[in-house]
Amino acid sequence: MALIVQKYGGTSVGTTDRIKAVATRVKRFVARGDQVVVVVSAMSGETNRLMALAGDMGKSPSARELDVLLSTGEQVTIALLAMALHAESIEACSYTGSQVRILTDDTHGKARIKSIDDKAMRHDLQQGRVVVVAGFQGSDDDNNITTLGRGGSDTTAVALAAALKADECQIYTDVDGVYTTDPRVVESARRLGRITFEEMLEMASLGSKVLQIRAVEFAGKYQVPLRVLSSFEEGEGTLISVEGDQPVEAPLVSGIAFNRDEARVVVRGVPDTPGVAYKVIGPVSDANIEVDVIVQNVAADGSTDFAFTVHRNELDKAQAITESVAKDLNAREVSVDANICKVSLVGVGMRSHAGIASKMFQTLAEVAINIELITTSEIKISVVIEEKFMELAVRSLHAAFDLDQPV
Amino acid sequence: MALIVQKYGGTSVGTTDRIKAVATRVKRFVARGDQVVVVVSAMSGETNRLMALAGDMGKSPSARELDVLLSTGEQVTIALLAMALHAESIEACSYTGSQVRILTDDTHGKARIKSIDDKAMRHDLQQGRVVVVAGFQGSDDDNNITTLGRGGSDTTAVALAAALKADECQIYTDVDGVYTTDPRVVESARRLGRITFEEMLEMASLGSKVLQIRAVEFAGKYQVPLRVLSSFEEGEGTLISVEGDQPVEAPLVSGIAFNRDEARVVVRGVPDTPGVAYKVIGPVSDANIEVDVIVQNVAADGSTDFAFTVHRNELDKAQAITESVAKDLNAREVSVDANICKVSLVGVGMRSHAGIASKMFQTLAEVAINIELITTSEIKISVVIEEKFMELAVRSLHAAFDLDQPV
Repeated sequence: MALIVQKYGGTSVGTTDRIKAVATRVKRFVARGDQVVVVVSAMSGETNRLMALAGDMGKSPSARELDVLLSTGEQVTIALLAMALHAESIEACSYTGSQVRILTDDTHGKARIKSIDDKAMRHDLQQGRVVVVAGFQGSDDDNNITTLGRGGSDTTAVALAAALKADECQIYTDVDGVYTTDPRVVESARRLGRITFEEMLEMASLGSKVLQIRAVEFAGKYQVPLRVLSSFEEGEGTLISVEGDQPVEAPLVSGIAFNRDEARVVVRGVPDTPGVAYKVIGPVSDANIEVDVIVQNVAADGSTDFAFTVHRNELDKAQAITESVAKDLNAREVSVDANICKVSLVGVGMRSHAGIASKMFQTLAEVAINIELITTSEIKISVVIEEKFMELAVRSLHAAFDLDQPV
Repeated sequence: MALIVQKYGGTSVGTTDRIKAVATRVKRFVARGDQVVVVVSAMSGETNRLMALAGDMGKSPSARELDVLLSTGEQVTIALLAMALHAESIEACSYTGSQVRILTDDTHGKARIKSIDDKAMRHDLQQGRVVVVAGFQGSDDDNNITTLGRGGSDTTAVALAAALKADECQIYTDVDGVYTTDPRVVESARRLGRITFEEMLEMASLGSKVLQIRAVEFAGKYQVPLRVLSSFEEGEGTLISVEGDQPVEAPLVSGIAFNRDEARVVVRGVPDTPGVAYKVIGPVSDANIEVDVIVQNVAADGSTDFAFTVHRNELDKAQAITESVAKDLNAREVSVDANICKVSLVGVGMRSHAGIASKMFQTLAEVAINIELITTSEIKISVVIEEKFMELAVRSLHAAFDLDQPV
């Protein structure tokens, strides 16, 4: 017997039949004696329908009223799922975010959870009821309805699991787990049985969009074991947990992430004085451009080269700003390249093992891929290369590190 | 400057364009300095859409969850109307029933309002904001969402008007007021400028379905002036208020109501002993059959005739019950007639004037209509006649009492 929080996204509750399928799945857990809290999103398509209605009302609808409108989406789903559970002879009770109560700050559209009252939920669970909670929403100190923003239902699920000290938080999606890399690029990509929060964060932020980063951070912070599984197929999915839970023979590398949408800016011949990095990156950040990789070479002859990457859509803006800064700094030149990509090895194992970087560079050299930039962190090595070599690089690395072999 | 509560039903907010038209109308009141609270229903069609979703989930959905589901209908409308008001540069804030808070009992699907917290609304009104409230809904002591049942939005509007001591409660519908009788039956039927609560109750219960009886009762009890107007045309509508507000030369008869859906049951030769009325009507009521007219003649030769009317759909059931009772009572016979109708004159003026009944009977006699049953109250005289004479009776009475003439 365990206390489990399950989250089903919009596709998993997209039709009344799918909602019934969710009820059937929940029933299996109830039958084996588990206490179950289910968090649901709006039925797929519903949020778009509501946004279209709001769009008819004028250009920039009030954030407060948009939250009132959008929060009805999950409210419909919780009522329908509770009814479907009743039809399966399972006692169940639905709660909106404000009924729980999930107290948030008042940043409409992307509110942060401040606290969760677990009293009503605990009472229901003790009575043998399944608790059905609307994801993505809460209410502020003045009882205004708020929404948590994109991926908010994942965050709701993790936050409820933390508040209830659940044994596991299960996120049901349309994929059956986290893979060593994108199976569309490497056919032999393998589902990972386990992965650490840190690895998942590196994988997620680099493009494996299975889970919202915010939910993973939250789960890591409160050490809520998180499992990603498919709501359409059977399977164990991928368990994301703290490192201590990993088997001792953890693989050196857990997965390979990549990102095609980057562009590189290089400033050459910048006089090497303190504060140069800030002088270059500051104005770019101030323009709300997100900077990803930042590399600065050691100075030679009193000047240095400075490189960074941004999202490809923002290259023009970043270039203009950088050229203006370069002029002020008396830098030699600014050059940009939109045809690059980033490939990263991720794995907690590499922390205690030397030689991974050199094996990575060797592998790429063997297939004649030139590395333009390198950055490293404790559990990640990223290289920036020409975009046309991306698939080749990912496939070669996947094979070189035996990621297609079962652990 | 006045404090006005306005209520717009499902048809009046049936599309985003109509919601914008409501915003334009509200703007006119704001422009002349009024404080406005707007109560809205779900967009027409929405409740049926939600009921269909619930229907997919199983046969008899839980009343609690049905309320969670249906209450989203008005929640969508309040958000959209607030946005439409913002687009007209009017400050506005929306409230669900539970946000107001409208506290109800826990009878899901037909909850009764227990109290209304006017603090937040008053604060908004004082700040110059329009307050937009979801009709038809509230929440119980445990913050479960409840709905007030059919016509609940009218009740919400009247209750808010009473709590705020509003100067007027305006109910916008698809008709432009209360008429002397149904204009489809009498072409010269005239819109009434004013009518008392009592008259409206008699008119409503007899078939002029402009307003929900419950809302009129509520308005009468708290003496909230109630105005019925069209949301599609301009006009003064009909003001429903207490009698004291009426001009002294109130007309004797205000209107003519009628009801086609009745059927008559007569028990003849019932031994005239105490408790007979109860013995006949009791079992019919116990079977949840609503009894309308009840007439008992004076006894002759120790026995009496007893007649009552029920809804035509329930005649068979009522007949079976009555025949069984008649046997027990040693009554002579039971006869039924499904081809009858009821026509009623309504008017507070008749309370202080004799001769109205006789003029009514004379008018019907002149067109050779036979009266089968007669009942009277303080402000109403009803006759049961053959159904085929209904239009003739209504037209003749409408002319005889000069109802087509302006007051």
